[in-house]
Amino acid sequence: MTIKFREEIKDLEAYKPGKPIEDVKREYGLDEVIKLASNENPLGSSPKAVEAVKKAAENLAIYPDGNATLLKESLAEKLGVKVTQILPSSGSDEMVDIIAKTFINKYDEVIMADITFPRYITTTKMMGGKPIVVPLKNWTYDLDGMREAITEKTRLIWLCNPNNPTGTMFTEEKLIEFLENVPENVIVVYDEAYREYVTRDDYLNDSIKLLDKYSNVIILRTFSKAYGLAALRVGFAISSEEIIHNMNKIRGPFNVNKMAQVAAVAALEDQDFIKKSYEVNKKGKEYLYQEFDKLGLEYAPSETNHIFVNVKKDANKIFVELQKRGMIIRPIMGTWIRVTIGIEAQNKLFIKLLKEVL
Amino acid sequence: MTIKFREEIKDLEAYKPGKPIEDVKREYGLDEVIKLASNENPLGSSPKAVEAVKKAAENLAIYPDGNATLLKESLAEKLGVKVTQILPSSGSDEMVDIIAKTFINKYDEVIMADITFPRYITTTKMMGGKPIVVPLKNWTYDLDGMREAITEKTRLIWLCNPNNPTGTMFTEEKLIEFLENVPENVIVVYDEAYREYVTRDDYLNDSIKLLDKYSNVIILRTFSKAYGLAALRVGFAISSEEIIHNMNKIRGPFNVNKMAQVAAVAALEDQDFIKKSYEVNKKGKEYLYQEFDKLGLEYAPSETNHIFVNVKKDANKIFVELQKRGMIIRPIMGTWIRVTIGIEAQNKLFIKLLKEVL
Repeated sequence: MTIKFREEIKDLEAYKPGKPIEDVKREYGLDEVIKLASNENPLGSSPKAVEAVKKAAENLAIYPDGNATLLKESLAEKLGVKVTQILPSSGSDEMVDIIAKTFINKYDEVIMADITFPRYITTTKMMGGKPIVVPLKNWTYDLDGMREAITEKTRLIWLCNPNNPTGTMFTEEKLIEFLENVPENVIVVYDEAYREYVTRDDYLNDSIKLLDKYSNVIILRTFSKAYGLAALRVGFAISSEEIIHNMNKIRGPFNVNKMAQVAAVAALEDQDFIKKSYEVNKKGKEYLYQEFDKLGLEYAPSETNHIFVNVKKDANKIFVELQKRGMIIRPIMGTWIRVTIGIEAQNKLFIKLLKEVL
Repeated sequence: MTIKFREEIKDLEAYKPGKPIEDVKREYGLDEVIKLASNENPLGSSPKAVEAVKKAAENLAIYPDGNATLLKESLAEKLGVKVTQILPSSGSDEMVDIIAKTFINKYDEVIMADITFPRYITTTKMMGGKPIVVPLKNWTYDLDGMREAITEKTRLIWLCNPNNPTGTMFTEEKLIEFLENVPENVIVVYDEAYREYVTRDDYLNDSIKLLDKYSNVIILRTFSKAYGLAALRVGFAISSEEIIHNMNKIRGPFNVNKMAQVAAVAALEDQDFIKKSYEVNKKGKEYLYQEFDKLGLEYAPSETNHIFVNVKKDANKIFVELQKRGMIIRPIMGTWIRVTIGIEAQNKLFIKLLKEVL
């Protein structure tokens, strides 16, 4: 065979998707399977979003608005930025890819954490960049370590706050201290996918204000988590007009499908749903903490909708045993799993089954 | 400002989307605006696809199946290939991007036509490839010219058959002659976005058989045209297991949204809709040919759902004048426009308005 691929491809691994729920049901003869594996909103999404999708379904043949005009206008108004400072994408997955293609040259150094959103390293490698991986400290981003890793070759830094999969956060104070020490020519991507779930006061709530001071910052947000639109794929970046203009050159002309656009606009208007999601998550987190404490299981403090917990047995084995019983979680590493915080009944069932398998 | 972008970005232009229909209505005070600009199916899509989307809309919070299992199984069965020879994407837009990222290195030569699907050149430039542009001959791909353009540096060749925006095709015989003369290490992307509309017998109807003989061929198809699912974004590639495996490493983990997956599966089952779309398009094409002949307007012979026609006046001016009257078409170059073949009433209105503005 003489097919030649880019050398960057060799080092990449294909994404290994979890089994579809239907397959798990069939394989183990289960009537019901609960998935607490992908940090989805257990309350679903705003009913307004569902209605918007059903209405838009009447005409599937027309291309989506390539400019996502209404979505950008809604976001700009809500966030107090210009329409030209916003770029929607097909989930944060696509945005990370767009950013890599906009900034990362071959051999550029790109700084990231070791245990974080996996698309950062994949897209960096895809562009031939050199990942500089800084280990977490206490399951939390080590911003001092990341700052020390900056060299003249550093092109970009990926930050996820709060972090996936560990759920931990760093404070506004720490972030500002970090940004003050990053050279202006180094891009800092600040990914806030889980921001809506943060309970602590020392988190940077109004990240938009960063853009006034730091021209090298790109903020990422998503509709896949608290907004409950993971099925549709929609996220967005907020940055300077110059950065957004250049990222816009790289994206596909119709990168955000129509259902995603209408649902996101509708979901934005339903902030009560977000408040309810926050409350249910907070309560669920407290319950799970309590139960983990009773079981003597260590966990990282979570500011997200998932908990990173040490089950003290092989995570892959626990994953398989739970799956047999109709509960899907995510094994992360060693004896650590990630479990998404569900609604009350789901959390209780998870604890019941976890006790069974431990 | 010290923000540095990849040098490849400088040479790219941001996609300029057409105005949303609502904006055109508002701007010109029109009650109805007809868009024959984007080669969308004027019959919409299969009602089965609409139903599938409405049903799936009940739960928007769950990630799509990252493996698009059901869609790949449906396609594999229909096409007689292995599931591992298929890769779905978020429209052909994303597929072209995935292919560029899989194969094109900086300075690689990439051969394409001058007037064709614009994503070929954009994604080639994005990866730092050198576009080798071979002019059409009689508005048709010049395969002899493309073959002569092959050098030791040639990495990939983009073919669109039938071609967008000219609507012309090349024959099975010509394609086989071409492929016989392309070195095995050069990838040939064979994009059949408009295949369902072809009326000529000498078109390669069963392109899948190419894969048995040519290990360097990637076939692209889409649900955006005859299948009428442009709003959702879904297309797919068919190739060898090795090529699909490597392209699969590059895609995002959830690149095809759930609505697109369920709608595509449903649409595939409704081949009556495709037949009807073909018939309506054929009839519309014959009507438009007749009218263009009466008006003495030259056009390229179309095997698609659009016609490339010389209106003998500045295309941009004709575009503006038609838009004022509620009819959106696509100005392509000089005095040539591209008009999508609509349903009977739309075609008649287009001709009426065209006569007004000429």
